[in-house]
Amino acid sequence: MFIVLKSNPDPARLASLKDWLASKDIEIHTSEGATTTVLGLVGDTSIIDIDLIAALDIVEDVKRIQEPFKNANRKFHPDDTVIKVGNTQIGGGNLTIMAGPCSVESEEQLVTIAKAVKASGATMLRGGAFKPRSSPYAFQGLGEEGLRLLSLAKKETGLPVVSEMMEASQLPLFDDVDVIQVGARNMQNFNLLSVLGNQDKPVMIKRGLSSTYEEWLMSAEYVMASGNKQVILCERGIRTFETYTRNTLDLGAVPVLKKLSHLPVIIDPSHASGKWDLVPSGALAAVAAGTDGLLIEVHNDPEKALCDGPQSLKMDTFDELAHKLLALHGFMQELEGGKK
Amino acid sequence: MFIVLKSNPDPARLASLKDWLASKDIEIHTSEGATTTVLGLVGDTSIIDIDLIAALDIVEDVKRIQEPFKNANRKFHPDDTVIKVGNTQIGGGNLTIMAGPCSVESEEQLVTIAKAVKASGATMLRGGAFKPRSSPYAFQGLGEEGLRLLSLAKKETGLPVVSEMMEASQLPLFDDVDVIQVGARNMQNFNLLSVLGNQDKPVMIKRGLSSTYEEWLMSAEYVMASGNKQVILCERGIRTFETYTRNTLDLGAVPVLKKLSHLPVIIDPSHASGKWDLVPSGALAAVAAGTDGLLIEVHNDPEKALCDGPQSLKMDTFDELAHKLLALHGFMQELEGGKK
Amino acid sequence: MFIVLKSNPDPARLASLKDWLASKDIEIHTSEGATTTVLGLVGDTSIIDIDLIAALDIVEDVKRIQEPFKNANRKFHPDDTVIKVGNTQIGGGNLTIMAGPCSVESEEQLVTIAKAVKASGATMLRGGAFKPRSSPYAFQGLGEEGLRLLSLAKKETGLPVVSEMMEASQLPLFDDVDVIQVGARNMQNFNLLSVLGNQDKPVMIKRGLSSTYEEWLMSAEYVMASGNKQVILCERGIRTFETYTRNTLDLGAVPVLKKLSHLPVIIDPSHASGKWDLVPSGALAAVAAGTDGLLIEVHNDPEKALCDGPQSLKMDTFDELAHKLLALHGFMQELEGGKK
Amino acid sequence: MFIVLKSNPDPARLASLKDWLASKDIEIHTSEGATTTVLGLVGDTSIIDIDLIAALDIVEDVKRIQEPFKNANRKFHPDDTVIKVGNTQIGGGNLTIMAGPCSVESEEQLVTIAKAVKASGATMLRGGAFKPRSSPYAFQGLGEEGLRLLSLAKKETGLPVVSEMMEASQLPLFDDVDVIQVGARNMQNFNLLSVLGNQDKPVMIKRGLSSTYEEWLMSAEYVMASGNKQVILCERGIRTFETYTRNTLDLGAVPVLKKLSHLPVIIDPSHASGKWDLVPSGALAAVAAGTDGLLIEVHNDPEKALCDGPQSLKMDTFDELAHKLLALHGFMQELEGGKK
Repeated sequence: MFIVLKSNPDPARLASLKDWLASKDIEIHTSEGATTTVLGLVGDTSIIDIDLIAALDIVEDVKRIQEPFKNANRKFHPDDTVIKVGNTQIGGGNLTIMAGPCSVESEEQLVTIAKAVKASGATMLRGGAFKPRSSPYAFQGLGEEGLRLLSLAKKETGLPVVSEMMEASQLPLFDDVDVIQVGARNMQNFNLLSVLGNQDKPVMIKRGLSSTYEEWLMSAEYVMASGNKQVILCERGIRTFETYTRNTLDLGAVPVLKKLSHLPVIIDPSHASGKWDLVPSGALAAVAAGTDGLLIEVHNDPEKALCDGPQSLKMDTFDELAHKLLALHGFMQELEGGKK
Repeated sequence: MFIVLKSNPDPARLASLKDWLASKDIEIHTSEGATTTVLGLVGDTSIIDIDLIAALDIVEDVKRIQEPFKNANRKFHPDDTVIKVGNTQIGGGNLTIMAGPCSVESEEQLVTIAKAVKASGATMLRGGAFKPRSSPYAFQGLGEEGLRLLSLAKKETGLPVVSEMMEASQLPLFDDVDVIQVGARNMQNFNLLSVLGNQDKPVMIKRGLSSTYEEWLMSAEYVMASGNKQVILCERGIRTFETYTRNTLDLGAVPVLKKLSHLPVIIDPSHASGKWDLVPSGALAAVAAGTDGLLIEVHNDPEKALCDGPQSLKMDTFDELAHKLLALHGFMQELEGGKK
Repeated sequence: MFIVLKSNPDPARLASLKDWLASKDIEIHTSEGATTTVLGLVGDTSIIDIDLIAALDIVEDVKRIQEPFKNANRKFHPDDTVIKVGNTQIGGGNLTIMAGPCSVESEEQLVTIAKAVKASGATMLRGGAFKPRSSPYAFQGLGEEGLRLLSLAKKETGLPVVSEMMEASQLPLFDDVDVIQVGARNMQNFNLLSVLGNQDKPVMIKRGLSSTYEEWLMSAEYVMASGNKQVILCERGIRTFETYTRNTLDLGAVPVLKKLSHLPVIIDPSHASGKWDLVPSGALAAVAAGTDGLLIEVHNDPEKALCDGPQSLKMDTFDELAHKLLALHGFMQELEGGKK
Repeated sequence: MFIVLKSNPDPARLASLKDWLASKDIEIHTSEGATTTVLGLVGDTSIIDIDLIAALDIVEDVKRIQEPFKNANRKFHPDDTVIKVGNTQIGGGNLTIMAGPCSVESEEQLVTIAKAVKASGATMLRGGAFKPRSSPYAFQGLGEEGLRLLSLAKKETGLPVVSEMMEASQLPLFDDVDVIQVGARNMQNFNLLSVLGNQDKPVMIKRGLSSTYEEWLMSAEYVMASGNKQVILCERGIRTFETYTRNTLDLGAVPVLKKLSHLPVIIDPSHASGKWDLVPSGALAAVAAGTDGLLIEVHNDPEKALCDGPQSLKMDTFDELAHKLLALHGFMQELEGGKK
């Protein structure tokens, strides 16, 4: 960490800052330039509150060198984290395909889709029981009944289940869920994160719409600091000025997070674009970029849902895509020399 | 709402869509162009799920005309909402100054600041008991003890209190708090919003870091749809590409929200910039823009907190600013012909 | 195009608006709702100035349905544009690899790199002679001398050359350049675009840092409307809130532009991240996403440039990457059933 | 400037980097921590190319402390720049109101508006002769004829004129223009900036849609480094995720630029919102924030332009606003103790 001082800092205040830093076992290297003096801090600066320093009268700027996350940091945990879920594992060279409907709607819908996606190569079943909706007038999910149906579909297919929890009080209902998802809008719901750190199911944290990599990793850190080291990161598109797509999928997240952290990285190309015809391109690109898995919405027929019309081809489209994804994953592994 | 159809839509699917819309009492006006056909929907389209329509195979695009919020909509509630809090009121031409420390730290700190800001003209006391922090290693607030101290400072000064609630389960602790704040990171914590809609204290909703005006008003709608009409909106800076300031204060929020909604609008210039020397300019501009109030952090001496140094002038700075703000507010009222 | 009227519009003004639209051969479909009246315009609305309509007193909002671009629009030109450059072609299932140094520095540097990238599989040579630099104190490129060296390297290797033009007056100097690049900062330099539309070399337009797909396509339209149909689009990262990478590479641009337009799309993963170790992941992902080519900076040894140190491995790294990219491209073509 | 080294840097490369820095008269302070070594550079680091350093194999990160701009930097030029234009001056406590039509359309239109805005209190006339339009099919301005009409209106009213130049080659036509405007889309057209630095008319640089304060000041630096010190900065709204307004007006630019630089700052509330009813709030807020002036579009009747309808009240609206702005400016000067 570096502290850039204002010119001519009050000597008494500077002295007390230095004493305080020393009391935290931080070593100080001072560089005096013509116009600026800079204190270089050496030691465990992750315990220093950067905003507190920045608020001091004698300080012009503070810049962090060391990352503020530890448990999630590859520097301290060089080996990839691999997470076992049911008969499958996330990370470690696997391509995990989590597929299923956006919302759980009925037993028939869910079991049909679950069987279909399993046959296509999916290794986990996704499905929303509690749905965060920006309008209070929109369908909020089946809730507890949705979780019961997921449990049933899991029994039928053997697929482990991932589903979103919106509030800490829902934890007892998630007994039969294998991976608990934290939604983008809850990425900085710190109470929820802490509660999830105190139980032992794997937690998949979606990136907030405008959250930086560092903030995202700090949310993982919340879970991990409470004891649960099984954290998965899921990129689902960020908010930018572009309005043609709902969000902008940031595939740079894959190599960046792999460099900064040892946690598995999943890509959700469905939420990112908000347009079905853009999903295949994004999913294939994610595999080439080195993702550990994909979270894909398999639409049960929206026509049917609305108007009882003819069955759509959506599951066929997924089937075709899944085969391509698995083939590409195999090819990439060869290309990268079996490294991954 | 307009539905732009793909060219040559499947007639059976189009028919079932039209039937479904008719079943919702929506009238359909069809415009057929050379390359596109568009359905204009007339009726209460706020009940239509726009994402569901957009997912249909025959649909190219959907555009909303009518705002999806009702309770918060000025069109249906032309008069300004005025909220009574203790002896003061928010809205209705008043300039509410909410001032106090970022975090409640001790009785002495809080009472000292509370007395000072009251003397300077503040009409409400702000102070954080539960603090959302992006790092699990940073100070998380005094919690319940912080609320006890706020209650005490309220008794000493008579100032009504605003403080942030982070989770629905904390509600019983907020008995003596006058306005419950929903933080920017919780703006779309829909469970929290619903719970706050089912109690009767006023709720101040901070805008999410990258939330649109519409999403923000929809969060107000969550509270209002549950029964509680006393909602205050607080702009605190949005996330942009600019890194010199922590966030970018969007003062355009004032006229826009006043136009779209009847709810009071408060500006928080402290969080927006993250730099103390930029607060006065932002606060004065907010008053000229027509804000109903300001939320200002009055630092107790950060030097002291850290290093036991000499007392800072921060309360003096606030005092000078508060006088200017009140004078400017008076001037603006004259200028606008007493309209406001 | 839809015009949403304010409630109770002045009848005389509405009538004159309708007359004006009729005079432009626009047919009007009126939908009257309980709270809003909407005019649906049918005809060639690309000639209507949307801002002009929006400024009318009686108008609340205007929404465009039809895209404002024509020459660049796939709807009117269903076949992919394929651009012949020297012995190679851009588009049409090819993977064009444009490689070379950021700036041309010397004959030795350029020729060494040109030979190396050709051997690795590059089909075009890139190199900056005129360099847009945000600081007036930074190196601005060799200018005319740089173009002379590019011409020389082209003669030595047979690789066609792409280089950036910063101002219309430089055109005569670009005689021996095969593709003229318009930089991101000049994407809306409309004078430059018009001049390039009046000559016949292919033009590669980089996306502006915060330009939407539509604005980008409108810049292509500027060139095409002046007569030159040989336009290439190059995504190079957009500006977002994320600061870890210099920009955020938007690979969604590939499927979106392929859908909206028939022009070839190139990805520049080097500028996007600003970090060398993120380039391979981005380049591979771009190929899987379906890009027509890549623009990659091959660093001549920065160590050497600065300090005359030992030769770097940068060209080796490129060589390894180029082989992977070509292999992946071949695999993707098989996977997509030779469609592309 | 700080250079954060990768762990275990190659000693030969580190030595050559240090030698190179020493050759530039940069002093190096080394801080060695447990996991990182950092070089603190002291001296004139504005000549160091930060991207070049960042590209070195042994370097993990580079952070700048010193601002890269000098001529525009308040640290080196503590006094406010005041620019004399005709009988008025920009800066120095004045409130400059630049008003006029977006585009010059006819002699009658321009002279009518010019007389009206002068009567209302405007001190400069604005008007576009060359119009940058995102569509090649939209009206591009009257060009040279527009400049002739501006000259005529200037003669009639005595108001100095500000107008936008889009290309260096247009300079000879701007003989009778008093302040040359560089548009947002040309903010980083470095050739144009250099040419404007080599002539002696004041230059007003609009902020690019997604340009940081630093990039903006570096564009001012381009003009100033070439010799012309008369630069004015104009904020006109930045691009964010919000779509309700065309852009987001960043009034924080006023105090930030006043702190970092000595140049006058103008606010353009018209382009920012793109909605006429939001202009007054933005303009008043800008005055309270401490702006040196405003650039306001006074619409000649858009109804008339289009449909020959009844004359709009737009000039009346401006008249009312201008009086408020001037009254508020007077009040603010008293409030700030005549300081400004």
